[in-house]
Amino acid sequence: MKEVIGLREAFNLANLVRDGLDKLIPYDAHVFPDVIKLDANENPYPFPDEVSRQIGQLAAGDLLSRYPDGEAVELRRDIAAYAGVTPEQVMVGNGSDELILNILLTFGTGGRVLITNPTFSMYKIHSLVAGAKPIPVPRRGDFSVDLPALVCYARQRDSRVIFLCSPNNPTGNASSLEEIESLLQQVNCLVVADQAYLEFGGADCAPLLNRYPNLIILRTFSKAFALAGLRVGYLLAHADVLRQIKKVKQPFNLNAFSQAAARLVLQHTALFQEQIQAILQERQILWQGLQNIEGVTAYPSAANFILFRTNFESKTIHQGLLQQGILIRKLGGPELPGFLRVTVGRPKENELFLQALAKVLQAAGRDSR
Amino acid sequence: MKEVIGLREAFNLANLVRDGLDKLIPYDAHVFPDVIKLDANENPYPFPDEVSRQIGQLAAGDLLSRYPDGEAVELRRDIAAYAGVTPEQVMVGNGSDELILNILLTFGTGGRVLITNPTFSMYKIHSLVAGAKPIPVPRRGDFSVDLPALVCYARQRDSRVIFLCSPNNPTGNASSLEEIESLLQQVNCLVVADQAYLEFGGADCAPLLNRYPNLIILRTFSKAFALAGLRVGYLLAHADVLRQIKKVKQPFNLNAFSQAAARLVLQHTALFQEQIQAILQERQILWQGLQNIEGVTAYPSAANFILFRTNFESKTIHQGLLQQGILIRKLGGPELPGFLRVTVGRPKENELFLQALAKVLQAAGRDSR
Repeated sequence: MKEVIGLREAFNLANLVRDGLDKLIPYDAHVFPDVIKLDANENPYPFPDEVSRQIGQLAAGDLLSRYPDGEAVELRRDIAAYAGVTPEQVMVGNGSDELILNILLTFGTGGRVLITNPTFSMYKIHSLVAGAKPIPVPRRGDFSVDLPALVCYARQRDSRVIFLCSPNNPTGNASSLEEIESLLQQVNCLVVADQAYLEFGGADCAPLLNRYPNLIILRTFSKAFALAGLRVGYLLAHADVLRQIKKVKQPFNLNAFSQAAARLVLQHTALFQEQIQAILQERQILWQGLQNIEGVTAYPSAANFILFRTNFESKTIHQGLLQQGILIRKLGGPELPGFLRVTVGRPKENELFLQALAKVLQAAGRDSR
Repeated sequence: MKEVIGLREAFNLANLVRDGLDKLIPYDAHVFPDVIKLDANENPYPFPDEVSRQIGQLAAGDLLSRYPDGEAVELRRDIAAYAGVTPEQVMVGNGSDELILNILLTFGTGGRVLITNPTFSMYKIHSLVAGAKPIPVPRRGDFSVDLPALVCYARQRDSRVIFLCSPNNPTGNASSLEEIESLLQQVNCLVVADQAYLEFGGADCAPLLNRYPNLIILRTFSKAFALAGLRVGYLLAHADVLRQIKKVKQPFNLNAFSQAAARLVLQHTALFQEQIQAILQERQILWQGLQNIEGVTAYPSAANFILFRTNFESKTIHQGLLQQGILIRKLGGPELPGFLRVTVGRPKENELFLQALAKVLQAAGRDSR
């Protein structure tokens, strides 16, 4: 024990930061005001008036001033009915982000986490935060999952969790139910099927839950159900799996207002279903429009966004579009060179995007000559 | 690499759970309907109508369907003005719980965390979740912090973070500013002053921020500001400290509605100030009332709750009160044998509680003869 009163070294923050955190850089969310937002895969349609009116009426009394139901009993019951599972198979979270971190804090720490790149960036970030080792298992050229490679990696020591996003963000393609079932049969890891975009396409994994205790499904109210602002994600899994995750879950992780608002949304799914249908139609029009622009390769999508590639740097196209008032997601890097992702917007937004993209590509072509 | 297709062992969840999690048991939130709730240190007064009306009007359009501002620029600016710091010294969280976990994931993992017991239980739980080693540093008999012991422990290898709750939950006493400053001067650890109950008493540590880069302050909207249902906590610290914590923070950790509602509350602090004054008056009446009951020892409080002790088991008194329709917090265990904590309620609630307690004690006395 040191006894150095009066002689202590100066405070040095770097000495206190835990090992491994140097690999992480803080996430800086850029805010671009007054742009057409086609960057975050949000539902672009106006929130249904009837539902927002009812949601507004929730804000009173105990719902504000008392702690929320930490078990979210009513919301879990409603989600179970919607997803075709039992309430004991449901956990809710402050967005899927929190659930991803909780899965990794429960099963990942000290082990290996297999990530089918290119995919959602938070699997890797949260693996590092939880002290797990993220292992990239690259998808094939057409972005399908390399199942034999995944199985092979999964059978190595200390492999604990596989993340498989379907439909996959940002590539848009979905894995078939047969593929996912085959994976579940061949590995003893937990397989996390992130189905945030399920309402737009891809096979629903929920029917597999009762047969595979190693399956975890992630879903969300942030996309099709237009509640990105309220952060409501949920997780479906065997009750034994949930019991373990509950050890790390914050007791009051989902606020009372978001719980009640999500329940109201589930009472009005027909209104959102109309919006989903409109988004699916627009996705087709947008995809066709991208195909028609010279120098653009667009990829088929089962989600509410489209991945595409040009022969220019992603940054050039992204910046050019921003100058036209349109914000999309820049990808790039060695995995996705020249790639960008555009969210399906409303008809007029998509039209403006396509026009702007054609213009930006022409200008980029001129500059490069 | 194993090649054992067809021969794999059966899935065994226990093999996948990370080391150290066996020390944790899932938090089971019991819900007791139709009771007088004096268990969770909530603000017992009706939420001001004017403010809840304005909060209700927030629920529309983009606030629901678009991702929140991950930087919470406007709320941080308003909190900074309220707390007398700069926006660069403020981070917001999904309740203080999330911020405690984030502090521990940034600085605690792999190190020692000093906890001045008896105190708020989440410091220990989140230390275990983050893979840090919680070290109890017992308070003295009067619940004051044992400063020399704390300094001694803090100078041992791998000590990273000290949690010091002031006013302390559940004991109610506050540490003086001199004590806290003395601690900050003598240690190179981070000192987390949890001031969740500051609006009810104790010295404000914010003026120390500019002089001590190892100070982190936690505060909340859940207590005096009556927003427990919306989960809004905040953290004040040097910008360098926040930059490190930002590496582990979820990008969109605080939902848009809670951000906007907290801003409205800060525009109406006078209304809540009236409620705080009423709670302080009631605290005095409740304390006096407890003193007047034979067999009860009550402890002075700088918060909105009172710690007290009887000669019976905590469980007996807790159950007895519950049968009378009153819910308080049961403590007990080797650290606080026979202790309970009661939140200051509205006048009628406190009166009913005191009557019920006297009755329960009489019955317990009869049973034990």
